Amino acid sequence: MVSTRNPLNIGAAARAMANFGFSRLRVVNPYDVAFREARSAVGAAPLLQTAEEFHTVADAVADCELVVGTTSVGHRELQHPLRRLEYGARLIGRKLRSVPVALLFGSEKFGLSNDDMSHCHWLMRIPTVGQDLSMNLGQAVSLCLYELARDPKAAEASPDRIRRASAGEYEQITRLLMDALDRSGYINETTATSTEEKVRRLVRRLDIAGKDAPVLMGMLKQILWKLGN
Amino acid sequence: MVSTRNPLNIGAAARAMANFGFSRLRVVNPYDVAFREARSAVGAAPLLQTAEEFHTVADAVADCELVVGTTSVGHRELQHPLRRLEYGARLIGRKLRSVPVALLFGSEKFGLSNDDMSHCHWLMRIPTVGQDLSMNLGQAVSLCLYELARDPKAAEASPDRIRRASAGEYEQITRLLMDALDRSGYINETTATSTEEKVRRLVRRLDIAGKDAPVLMGMLKQILWKLGN
Repeated sequence: MVSTRNPLNIGAAARAMANFGFSRLRVVNPYDVAFREARSAVGAAPLLQTAEEFHTVADAVADCELVVGTTSVGHRELQHPLRRLEYGARLIGRKLRSVPVALLFGSEKFGLSNDDMSHCHWLMRIPTVGQDLSMNLGQAVSLCLYELARDPKAAEASPDRIRRASAGEYEQITRLLMDALDRSGYINETTATSTEEKVRRLVRRLDIAGKDAPVLMGMLKQILWKLGN
Repeated sequence: MVSTRNPLNIGAAARAMANFGFSRLRVVNPYDVAFREARSAVGAAPLLQTAEEFHTVADAVADCELVVGTTSVGHRELQHPLRRLEYGARLIGRKLRSVPVALLFGSEKFGLSNDDMSHCHWLMRIPTVGQDLSMNLGQAVSLCLYELARDPKAAEASPDRIRRASAGEYEQITRLLMDALDRSGYINETTATSTEEKVRRLVRRLDIAGKDAPVLMGMLKQILWKLGN
């Protein structure tokens, strides 16, 4: 994080790093007093306490084999290849397996300077809707780290293993409901068959979870018992 | 946003919504005074000014066909299907094309209550590393909206259309560098051929952008001119 003014943002970045399993926070010329205070505060994230402080971007990224700057684009003419977060994070992820990579975030107000960016191999952009409204710094950090930690397979998989009620259970519920409707005088003798079919279709549309089937049957049985009296 | 305590988080959520193209912010029982202040503040996001206030979750989601709660899981035993953000956002995205969907966020300290959750069809979880450290509320909102706005195709595409230097340019650079090395006395007569091959291979490994080739040639020509004197 380069020239961050608000120590709350450094704290938010540290929290996002912990959330997504990143551990090395480096700050370049933060707003001094506030940073020291935030770092020494009771309850400060361990990541914040072990954050390293540097005076130049060159020193902060010296041991990294890939240096990526982040930008909201804005009005500057960029001299660098600019990659969208979804694609850039894939490239970073590949590198990260074997070598240290630096991800640079600029100040809240101005982002990275051209001088900061000249240390970068390329730049990464979060695909926001408008180019004018920059992102909150803490949110930008968490989005980049989330995309790095994101599991593309998790979007495909259907982890939904909730058993639906079986056809037999649906039929039992249908029968119980028909009985209750019958005892309540809901069913007209002459249209009884078509009513039963309507009720059956309605029950099938309910999308009942397996574990809810016995509960519904219990409710209907209780109602039937009361109706029987 | 249900029972949000810190109006800064409502502001951060509004900003993230603007970033990713969402417009309808609803708050349920926010910490009153602070919310009103934040909303009427000069420079408050338009989204914040048009935020609707409700007294119950039921009222806030009444017109929605899908209601999804967010959770950091934690210690509660959940009574709902729980989906990872990557997968859940796909389901929400599909619904969003045709019907209104509500995405619920609980308070900073306690998240959604069991009562709040009972209004949800299912729950969504941001895949953080540890279960103990909850996410910052503003960051959680921006992550969910980013995932909804995310373009999976952008991860596949290679928008990298930077022309690399051609073989001819590489060779010109190699020749100029060889001349400069020769005039500098770097090259041993007896090993000149193998040196040339080494230099050629080294230059090929440099990965030179097309636009940088003439710049490098200009530098080498200038050096050659100076060496010639």
